[in-house]
Amino acid sequence: MNNSVLIAHTKDRVGVTSELTSLIADGGCNIEHLDHFLDHESYQFFIRIVFDPSNEVHDAIHRYFNAHPDMHYELHLPNQRQKMAIFVSKMDHAMMELILRVRAGEIPVEISMVISNHDTHRDLVEQFGIRFHHVPFNKEIKARAEQQMIDLLDGQADFIVLARYMQILSPEFIERYKFKIINIHHSFLPAFIGAKPYAQAYDRGVKLIGATAHYVTSELDGGPIIQQDVLRVNHRYTKDELVVVGRHVENRVLADAVMWHANHKVLVHGNKTIVLGV
Amino acid sequence: MNNSVLIAHTKDRVGVTSELTSLIADGGCNIEHLDHFLDHESYQFFIRIVFDPSNEVHDAIHRYFNAHPDMHYELHLPNQRQKMAIFVSKMDHAMMELILRVRAGEIPVEISMVISNHDTHRDLVEQFGIRFHHVPFNKEIKARAEQQMIDLLDGQADFIVLARYMQILSPEFIERYKFKIINIHHSFLPAFIGAKPYAQAYDRGVKLIGATAHYVTSELDGGPIIQQDVLRVNHRYTKDELVVVGRHVENRVLADAVMWHANHKVLVHGNKTIVLGV
Amino acid sequence: MNNSVLIAHTKDRVGVTSELTSLIADGGCNIEHLDHFLDHESYQFFIRIVFDPSNEVHDAIHRYFNAHPDMHYELHLPNQRQKMAIFVSKMDHAMMELILRVRAGEIPVEISMVISNHDTHRDLVEQFGIRFHHVPFNKEIKARAEQQMIDLLDGQADFIVLARYMQILSPEFIERYKFKIINIHHSFLPAFIGAKPYAQAYDRGVKLIGATAHYVTSELDGGPIIQQDVLRVNHRYTKDELVVVGRHVENRVLADAVMWHANHKVLVHGNKTIVLGV
Amino acid sequence: MNNSVLIAHTKDRVGVTSELTSLIADGGCNIEHLDHFLDHESYQFFIRIVFDPSNEVHDAIHRYFNAHPDMHYELHLPNQRQKMAIFVSKMDHAMMELILRVRAGEIPVEISMVISNHDTHRDLVEQFGIRFHHVPFNKEIKARAEQQMIDLLDGQADFIVLARYMQILSPEFIERYKFKIINIHHSFLPAFIGAKPYAQAYDRGVKLIGATAHYVTSELDGGPIIQQDVLRVNHRYTKDELVVVGRHVENRVLADAVMWHANHKVLVHGNKTIVLGV
Repeated sequence: MNNSVLIAHTKDRVGVTSELTSLIADGGCNIEHLDHFLDHESYQFFIRIVFDPSNEVHDAIHRYFNAHPDMHYELHLPNQRQKMAIFVSKMDHAMMELILRVRAGEIPVEISMVISNHDTHRDLVEQFGIRFHHVPFNKEIKARAEQQMIDLLDGQADFIVLARYMQILSPEFIERYKFKIINIHHSFLPAFIGAKPYAQAYDRGVKLIGATAHYVTSELDGGPIIQQDVLRVNHRYTKDELVVVGRHVENRVLADAVMWHANHKVLVHGNKTIVLGV
Repeated sequence: MNNSVLIAHTKDRVGVTSELTSLIADGGCNIEHLDHFLDHESYQFFIRIVFDPSNEVHDAIHRYFNAHPDMHYELHLPNQRQKMAIFVSKMDHAMMELILRVRAGEIPVEISMVISNHDTHRDLVEQFGIRFHHVPFNKEIKARAEQQMIDLLDGQADFIVLARYMQILSPEFIERYKFKIINIHHSFLPAFIGAKPYAQAYDRGVKLIGATAHYVTSELDGGPIIQQDVLRVNHRYTKDELVVVGRHVENRVLADAVMWHANHKVLVHGNKTIVLGV
Repeated sequence: MNNSVLIAHTKDRVGVTSELTSLIADGGCNIEHLDHFLDHESYQFFIRIVFDPSNEVHDAIHRYFNAHPDMHYELHLPNQRQKMAIFVSKMDHAMMELILRVRAGEIPVEISMVISNHDTHRDLVEQFGIRFHHVPFNKEIKARAEQQMIDLLDGQADFIVLARYMQILSPEFIERYKFKIINIHHSFLPAFIGAKPYAQAYDRGVKLIGATAHYVTSELDGGPIIQQDVLRVNHRYTKDELVVVGRHVENRVLADAVMWHANHKVLVHGNKTIVLGV
Repeated sequence: MNNSVLIAHTKDRVGVTSELTSLIADGGCNIEHLDHFLDHESYQFFIRIVFDPSNEVHDAIHRYFNAHPDMHYELHLPNQRQKMAIFVSKMDHAMMELILRVRAGEIPVEISMVISNHDTHRDLVEQFGIRFHHVPFNKEIKARAEQQMIDLLDGQADFIVLARYMQILSPEFIERYKFKIINIHHSFLPAFIGAKPYAQAYDRGVKLIGATAHYVTSELDGGPIIQQDVLRVNHRYTKDELVVVGRHVENRVLADAVMWHANHKVLVHGNKTIVLGV
């Protein structure tokens, strides 16, 4: 949090790492951590550098990338918490996990609001000092509801977390927040796409229950995977008990994904993610 | 191994556990372990009892089940190692894991033979004192090859392990060894059914690599799952490296499944398994 | 929760399982689950039976054990939630994990009170409708503080959870609640006994961070272990980051232990636990 | 394996990463992967760079470090397999795991010899085409035995793996192969130092069985930890069954450590390891 973070990706060529690290060294700044990835299939290069902040270096970085318009970059200054909006429906476990981790200082974001299609969790949310908005949502009123949410989010959310939000957002909404919406899917994708994954898992007799955090794209449960994990179950687990185990693994997986996103560690590459610096 | 094992399943009714444990107690025998499962959807009851052996009790058990022909049971006497045949193609890792674990006394079976559609592993197998049979196999000669294998297996194999055997067996062959063929599939089923699961996993960008041991049925990769596990990977793993990680998880999962089967711990229930006593 | 639970342990002899299951069958009741353990070193026998409730069977069980005074037993009737008191100091993560899991219906207890040596968490606790008592505690006032806590607990707590309670309770207090106090120790015991285990772990350069839930005895961090788990770390984790990872594993381990205790699954045997029915 | 690997560590100063990556870029070479670590307590800096090989760059690197004699470095050229000697006693599982992984191409070393204080495994080792030396070893003949081993190892071993070698090597022998001897200890260190860790674990009633791979120093089981892992057990595991579970976790942990060492990924820092590029 006290450091600057540079993220970049580009078509690979000799010397990029040298050029970028020289910008930092020339400004007298130390590198805290550097991680990078070279994809041999696409010849794309990805880099994340955490370094001691300096206006001189920040300026040099902006000048460098202005001179290399084919390269993508983001420069994140120290002590800037992203604003995070949480969307939730009736199940509150994933939302609570995020609220508690943010409150404990583990995830460097500000929860700017919780939006729900039910009014159920208003008290719970507000007692943690977080704004709560009830925005009814269903197929018939989707366009109006999404407009209402956009108005709430405007300038108030750098990214959105669907913490078991059980509504399907429109492609237009998703496009507006491209790779800025993180969803937790309650299965080990691509197994059990769609509705009722725990019932599907029960019927198939799997021995592990999984969860997947991914960026939302217009393809249902098809976006780039950020994190996955599993917990062990056995034949004695009822459907309801699979749901409980699933909640625990959902919480862990979503918290990892949000923490990485908040720390600018996740880069999207095609339909995959590159997670640097973990 | 020094104990007898009774496995039974039946439509649930009051008193079954009491009746079975009384048979053992009346013969003066101690129960080493008892595990059971009652499925509330089907009202089927499953039990596994490990007990001190006694001819008197064994006879009483046979008489009891003869008087209850609707109940299914198996009685396994002490110190009887099942004969296991291993089918293998070019990849030898899963076969070697089984050979070493049997040799170390971890899995109480006798490896009666290795059958392969290639002659590659003859020396490796024979140096461990295990018979090796090369049975060429492809679609054109499948019927003849399977007959040849049946002749080899006849009386010499209580069950078969497909340790990365890359051929599709006929429904007739599978039916002959119903729930006596264990396969290791190189993915977390039901994700990535069919061929090249590691390539599918690579393309989807998953963060965990899984493997699934299951009984073979005529539905491809669709039989009852015995065991599953995963190992963590990240964006830096190439397809070839996913294959290596996959080998390790395949080995563990298959070894668990074979060990449980060898110890009469796996009961099939519909398209699921009940694993008792673990 | 809708079933009765019988727990018993005794010196092993032939027929105990048969006798107990017959009591239940004779009352026309079905067994939901039975798990047992025979320790071959001590010849002690442990059993846990979950069964459909019936006054007739309950009476028969009490009569049976009255006639066998050398056998230990507990009979737990359905729908009886134990009262749980949580002791906490400044760190609230483990307490919050328990509060949320109880609230979600995952752990069948009533949280009758939270006792803390600080007043910090009063609002947090009370907003979940739970009574909060501030009982200052240090070496000088230990006797008085413990008496105050005993007065609060009297009739109001079936067991106590030390959810990162950083005070050492007296042997007398511990004896009064023998095997009724669960502590979460922030290391993989017996590694890093005593104070500052994360600093010890950092200095030793371990690659896994663990936590241990155990019953409290008068030997520091030496009581019977109920559950343990670990999470992976690496050289980049600072001491503070080890503490964060540790919180997550503490939460999981303590929640397991409390859930098992609440469901009468944990039996103490010497300085170990037998966990039946998981 | 087709790339060069540069490892360096030094007191931290601004510009090191820039300088080193510039050497590579100036030679027209691409960086395959770079990982580094800055220790904030000691202000030591560690870096590992994998890059396309070039004589020009190699020369430049040597010149650079000659001009910076206070910096430590190693330059490893492509396609150079280290020679690995395995020391083993009666238990062969860890040795076999290494032999099979090397044979499968997973660990880029040449197993130049196996040395054992027993002649038991001669046939097993030789059938894999590996030289086997029986060197009797006990306290009385330690000096002579170690001299015999040094003669065998001279020029024939870049590092040594103690794959459950149950003898204590002398401080002089250890110093000669400083941080070139990897041991697998059969517990989660620092728990259960010394002999019979599985018996200690059994007596303490732990719920996880661990293993630790570490560099050997003259302090028993006290050297820098390279890798650790655990597997879950429960009250039903006998001491012998803990040993079996332990074998599996030993195998995994030792294989990781050897693979990382073979790929020049492990740097020693005080009594800890920095593992880069994993």
